[in-house]
Amino acid sequence: MNLARFLGIQADAPEPIRSGSPRDVQRLATLCHHLLSATGEVSAIQLSRETVRLIRALSPEARSSFVDVLASRFGVNTEAVRKAAAAYGADPSARNLAVLQTAAESPRLELFRRMNISGGALHLLVQLRGHILEDGRPSWQPVEDDLRNLFQFWFNRGLLTLERIDWRSPAVLLEKLIEYEAVHEIQGFRDLRRRLEADRRCYGFFHPAMPDEPVMFVEIALTRGIGSKIGPLLNPNADVGDPMAADCAVFYSITNCQPGLRGVPLGSLLLKQVVDDLRLTLPGLRRFMTLSPIPGLGRWLREQPDFLRVSEHFKNGDWPKMGTASKELERVMSSLCAGYLLHAKRGKEPLDPVARFHLRNGARLERIHWLADLSARALKDSYGMMVNYVYRPREIEANHEAYTQKHQIAADSRIEFLARKSLSARKPILINGD
Amino acid sequence: MNLARFLGIQADAPEPIRSGSPRDVQRLATLCHHLLSATGEVSAIQLSRETVRLIRALSPEARSSFVDVLASRFGVNTEAVRKAAAAYGADPSARNLAVLQTAAESPRLELFRRMNISGGALHLLVQLRGHILEDGRPSWQPVEDDLRNLFQFWFNRGLLTLERIDWRSPAVLLEKLIEYEAVHEIQGFRDLRRRLEADRRCYGFFHPAMPDEPVMFVEIALTRGIGSKIGPLLNPNADVGDPMAADCAVFYSITNCQPGLRGVPLGSLLLKQVVDDLRLTLPGLRRFMTLSPIPGLGRWLREQPDFLRVSEHFKNGDWPKMGTASKELERVMSSLCAGYLLHAKRGKEPLDPVARFHLRNGARLERIHWLADLSARALKDSYGMMVNYVYRPREIEANHEAYTQKHQIAADSRIEFLARKSLSARKPILINGD
Amino acid sequence: MNLARFLGIQADAPEPIRSGSPRDVQRLATLCHHLLSATGEVSAIQLSRETVRLIRALSPEARSSFVDVLASRFGVNTEAVRKAAAAYGADPSARNLAVLQTAAESPRLELFRRMNISGGALHLLVQLRGHILEDGRPSWQPVEDDLRNLFQFWFNRGLLTLERIDWRSPAVLLEKLIEYEAVHEIQGFRDLRRRLEADRRCYGFFHPAMPDEPVMFVEIALTRGIGSKIGPLLNPNADVGDPMAADCAVFYSITNCQPGLRGVPLGSLLLKQVVDDLRLTLPGLRRFMTLSPIPGLGRWLREQPDFLRVSEHFKNGDWPKMGTASKELERVMSSLCAGYLLHAKRGKEPLDPVARFHLRNGARLERIHWLADLSARALKDSYGMMVNYVYRPREIEANHEAYTQKHQIAADSRIEFLARKSLSARKPILINGD
Amino acid sequence: MNLARFLGIQADAPEPIRSGSPRDVQRLATLCHHLLSATGEVSAIQLSRETVRLIRALSPEARSSFVDVLASRFGVNTEAVRKAAAAYGADPSARNLAVLQTAAESPRLELFRRMNISGGALHLLVQLRGHILEDGRPSWQPVEDDLRNLFQFWFNRGLLTLERIDWRSPAVLLEKLIEYEAVHEIQGFRDLRRRLEADRRCYGFFHPAMPDEPVMFVEIALTRGIGSKIGPLLNPNADVGDPMAADCAVFYSITNCQPGLRGVPLGSLLLKQVVDDLRLTLPGLRRFMTLSPIPGLGRWLREQPDFLRVSEHFKNGDWPKMGTASKELERVMSSLCAGYLLHAKRGKEPLDPVARFHLRNGARLERIHWLADLSARALKDSYGMMVNYVYRPREIEANHEAYTQKHQIAADSRIEFLARKSLSARKPILINGD
Repeated sequence: MNLARFLGIQADAPEPIRSGSPRDVQRLATLCHHLLSATGEVSAIQLSRETVRLIRALSPEARSSFVDVLASRFGVNTEAVRKAAAAYGADPSARNLAVLQTAAESPRLELFRRMNISGGALHLLVQLRGHILEDGRPSWQPVEDDLRNLFQFWFNRGLLTLERIDWRSPAVLLEKLIEYEAVHEIQGFRDLRRRLEADRRCYGFFHPAMPDEPVMFVEIALTRGIGSKIGPLLNPNADVGDPMAADCAVFYSITNCQPGLRGVPLGSLLLKQVVDDLRLTLPGLRRFMTLSPIPGLGRWLREQPDFLRVSEHFKNGDWPKMGTASKELERVMSSLCAGYLLHAKRGKEPLDPVARFHLRNGARLERIHWLADLSARALKDSYGMMVNYVYRPREIEANHEAYTQKHQIAADSRIEFLARKSLSARKPILINGD
Repeated sequence: MNLARFLGIQADAPEPIRSGSPRDVQRLATLCHHLLSATGEVSAIQLSRETVRLIRALSPEARSSFVDVLASRFGVNTEAVRKAAAAYGADPSARNLAVLQTAAESPRLELFRRMNISGGALHLLVQLRGHILEDGRPSWQPVEDDLRNLFQFWFNRGLLTLERIDWRSPAVLLEKLIEYEAVHEIQGFRDLRRRLEADRRCYGFFHPAMPDEPVMFVEIALTRGIGSKIGPLLNPNADVGDPMAADCAVFYSITNCQPGLRGVPLGSLLLKQVVDDLRLTLPGLRRFMTLSPIPGLGRWLREQPDFLRVSEHFKNGDWPKMGTASKELERVMSSLCAGYLLHAKRGKEPLDPVARFHLRNGARLERIHWLADLSARALKDSYGMMVNYVYRPREIEANHEAYTQKHQIAADSRIEFLARKSLSARKPILINGD
Repeated sequence: MNLARFLGIQADAPEPIRSGSPRDVQRLATLCHHLLSATGEVSAIQLSRETVRLIRALSPEARSSFVDVLASRFGVNTEAVRKAAAAYGADPSARNLAVLQTAAESPRLELFRRMNISGGALHLLVQLRGHILEDGRPSWQPVEDDLRNLFQFWFNRGLLTLERIDWRSPAVLLEKLIEYEAVHEIQGFRDLRRRLEADRRCYGFFHPAMPDEPVMFVEIALTRGIGSKIGPLLNPNADVGDPMAADCAVFYSITNCQPGLRGVPLGSLLLKQVVDDLRLTLPGLRRFMTLSPIPGLGRWLREQPDFLRVSEHFKNGDWPKMGTASKELERVMSSLCAGYLLHAKRGKEPLDPVARFHLRNGARLERIHWLADLSARALKDSYGMMVNYVYRPREIEANHEAYTQKHQIAADSRIEFLARKSLSARKPILINGD
Repeated sequence: MNLARFLGIQADAPEPIRSGSPRDVQRLATLCHHLLSATGEVSAIQLSRETVRLIRALSPEARSSFVDVLASRFGVNTEAVRKAAAAYGADPSARNLAVLQTAAESPRLELFRRMNISGGALHLLVQLRGHILEDGRPSWQPVEDDLRNLFQFWFNRGLLTLERIDWRSPAVLLEKLIEYEAVHEIQGFRDLRRRLEADRRCYGFFHPAMPDEPVMFVEIALTRGIGSKIGPLLNPNADVGDPMAADCAVFYSITNCQPGLRGVPLGSLLLKQVVDDLRLTLPGLRRFMTLSPIPGLGRWLREQPDFLRVSEHFKNGDWPKMGTASKELERVMSSLCAGYLLHAKRGKEPLDPVARFHLRNGARLERIHWLADLSARALKDSYGMMVNYVYRPREIEANHEAYTQKHQIAADSRIEFLARKSLSARKPILINGD
């Protein structure tokens, strides 16, 4: 049993009142210097707690001032590095290398390490990097680099755990899901509850020093047959299905919870592990696939000459409900979408970020669904289209290798066929007899 | 709930058969190169698991060969560092600094980080450093440095948890205590059980990625009055006292479990936190003290001229049982011991390692006990003497500061008095009217 | 680890569709007969599961029909009892007593016991008794008696556990609090969250076979000074206080969650145990008291001649906001209230049910608060008055004994003084110079 | 979290010193009378705790005196029962029935129920019945009946949980397995550890009010192929096999831990549930069977005339090692054994108690193994023979029904064939050409 947890010390601490006078920042800077020069853990722990408490209490502006301080006053000693570099240049001995390494490491790293000797500091540091990334002043780059560097150690996959989340999970965790879910917003506990019923699954990655803060989570619907529309999956009043009768696991939402961990590779294994666990606990499942948005499609389409042939059609905001949302339109748009997914590139990878994520993870591009998401956002981003990426356990590794090494995309032949059509088609498309 | 833990996959894996042909080491080296150049987590995880499996299966000799490989083939690229150093010397820009930092970081760090993406790797890496420290070939120094460097991040205090250990703890953990306890050996589960009864306490520091492996643990006896002898505390047949009636907590054993973590500052806070917890749960406790060995006393004494006055006395192996173990002898030896603890130095700190540990932690040197430990080892190390270090909650920080900054030792006036006597005494001591 | 719990079999079972044709009830009756005559557990477990499943699926009307069946077809065999009674009358041997006991025990008891071999049955049986009590047909009395009899064994205090409930508790449990709280209704998760902050406490009694169903729970506010108004304690936007600075624990709501357990003595010890736990974990607390409604006051008052002197005053629905809610009115009403609490009786105990509960538990009647609860219900029930019952650890037992044996009420002298005044006062009271 | 559990109050209470003067028993009797007449829970809880403490401290002799007191002073009031019986005889109304039921219920039931309001009482009551059953004085029968009656409610299957036990289980529980295992004794923690390795399983039934006391447990070996000898399964130095490669689960030991629960039907479902769990977690398993002793065989055989043909053979204590333990001897003995298992009866059920247990549970008698257990006890009880009972998931219920209703035994045709031979064989058997 964990005494601190039991005694509820952290959980019970009321939120601090935010403040942020220049004096607070100055006091914090002094504290950081003391912490960095503390000679023993007994003093360090007190200084660390106080530092963490003060940072937590900073207003956003004061937090920016504090990052300025971190950037300007806790970097490497240029002269010392220069000297060590010269010495190493003259004599590349192990000793000189060690001296150079020490000189080239910024004192901020040690400062952050020392902050993290008191509980609760890790999440605060993640939030601090989130703040830096959001604001993004160039002078803050070295601070952000140092934090990312640290996080690559502290959020190493071997330190994370995969946990199932359900309606038995602590409320303190569940409210975080409501707060963080970005793809398909959760409307309070009632909506969340439906997403945790018998025919749904939810898994999260957790760090042991942030037990109530998911690092990432994924939401899954257990269905019979492939889902081609997102609406029914999100309906909080939908009847609950029998999970034992399901043959398909639809990953309908994947959320990165911590903006401060951007660029720290965490979750590409989440899906693979979840697939493994689902197969074990629900042997009736045959297919594992996403029902994913295509966030970059709309913007890309609007720059394509081919799109002009159909763009007229979307002028009326009510187009999805019009009879004119015909088979022909579906055919054209599906072809364009297939072309986008297979051939629109950023460097050697697909332009679409969701596609990059799943294809890199070893998924196969399976099917395109017309009018699958009728939310305003999806209509704008992808004209209501969605796509399935399928994870076939036996194929994942080969797909991943082919993708990362040769940039080959695993795709169903129907999608390849559609994409070819999209490339060849150059004549105007007549829709609804126009 | 943690699925992997629940399904017992790791726990159930049988121990591998150790092997160690040159071919195994070669295969491992190749695997390490692949792991280091893997482009995605899906492939990295497989390579990592296989690497960990192979290292675990190495015989001790093969493990040494593998460390040779790590030392020779995964260090920095001297030429690249030189170049980056020169560039930085010419232009100390942020960009050149970043290049230099990257070049100066050994690829081993990244290799170890990648190993640690699969479960169970962390303890293996700790064992690997233990192996390196034990053997200690100079060429291995850089590998050891890299691991210590990593462990300073991975075993950061904020990632460790303090847990109480009792007879309800898992057997898998308790057998580790039996294995690791070094100060006062535990003779099997029966002996251990007595050490976990109502009038005893045991706390451990744990790392979440090594849940069954204590990092450090401390054993405590709850007594009425100060213990002056270790024997009764260790007697497995002693009657169990009422913890609520105890006024004194005697820390009679502190064990570092992981030799591979030597030099990584972990546990100096363990005692302070344990004191805090004991005060909360047993408000009747008034004193918190150790009953500690004085491991360096014997060797030091035998080099002191003063000791000649009494050394004759110890020729007979049965001296502790002889009537001659007189008050006078106790007086002389206590004075010498006080002199040792207060004035024998290594640099500016006490020569005695246990004294260094507790004084640095903020304890006060309280009392010396004659004939407190009659085990063969204690008779040899300290002529059976033991010492109490007291932790007074209000004094800990001040003592710690005075010690770390001015090398002042907090000691009871009686001990200071004894030490002065020891310094002044230069005439031969007559014992038992000899 | 509990496999069934882990595999989530129960948790995942979707709610059954309610049905209730006469045929369903008939089928259930047949099933019950089979279950009662099953010769081994292997068949009994299947029959039991099916029985439980069918009862759960009954509509309310069908449930009533089923109780009719239980009442008419599963009672004792009158003739057998008569015969056994005659045999015992003739020869009161141990053997004849055993025969008589068996004959006099209704087969329903064994039927319910057999239902309860499958998980989830216990709560269903509690709900069944709830249904019986609510409807209350005289012919159902024997069924209700049998269930109460069983519950006295199954909800024996030694089988219940006391648990703290906080924001880390499972959502599945927290939603039950929202559902069950009757005294001061909880308006959703947000309101509940405030009631579980650092300056609040919540404890529940649980039965191990109903882990997600509280049997009873109590809500506590940690305050500085005695609370005299309920409003601020319930305000979801109130600032969170420091629990360590609190000197008073105010029990502001106690809820019996299971109507089906009426008459089964469960919770009178809840408060005593909670007081013990609070003292241990928050040593700063000095006073433990309720802020309780006086539900029977209004009805009683309206029957008192004395009340006529002031009743005019309450004709205007807005009276609490009028300046006329004067000191004089407070004085009169407090006296009347004191008289009610101390002298209005039902048998030898107070007429007020809340007073009966706390006084029987060993509390002392401490203080009456005027305009303490301005909710419509409280204005009607008690003209907005509330009362503190204090639990003084050293006094609880003596108060309890004096109450249960001599019907003596422990009350503060001020209340006794007020009550005497109320008894003596016979002349009209002039309020606000009328 | 459970506060009492966390604070370790019960776990920490040292064992009481046993005493047992007549005065202690007298004091206890008085206490029981007080407890029975307590009017509220606040006083009852104190009296209950003190009662439980005193009973626990009784010496065995004093415990017997206490049972005498329970038998003589807390039974029904004969005269009251007589009167109630007469009233019911004259008028069998619901009211008169209720009066009769109350009168016929012994006050002991209520006394035991009240004892059980304090923690730890349940196990004590189970031990008390164990004491009664062991000694077995006829005058104690009513006390034993009352306790069995209570236990049928308190150990109702719906209140028990099935848990997996492994090397991660608390030591406090594991030492109970060592203490209780009766079939194949466990030689300390080292032996136990082997029985909990990857290729073994252990499950227990637990009662929530006795969390550290298994009610029953079963030990299982996961093997490839049917085990025909017990020795290798029990060898603590045997290599650990791969559980994923196993196709057979051998239940080699089933232990009832609480003699005080004799006659309370608990565990017949344990095996069925364990089979269900094993199938879920180890889908490679194809067969579930016991390797069981045949405890009554030896005694029965020695009374059979047929046995005379071979009995000479067993005169030499070293017979199992002699070459003469021939195929012919095996054939004869197997036939006799088959005859015993299928045709030797006690009433309508098999004479062998182990056979009764498994056949009643729905198992099939599968195979007889010659020289399967060479322990002294097995050689005496069954001439070293053992038998497999197979649990086929699809067959269990039908077998159980056929057995309980028609006393049909499900057996392999080979065993039926052997049994027929045994019946027909009447001529002397020539072994080894004698």
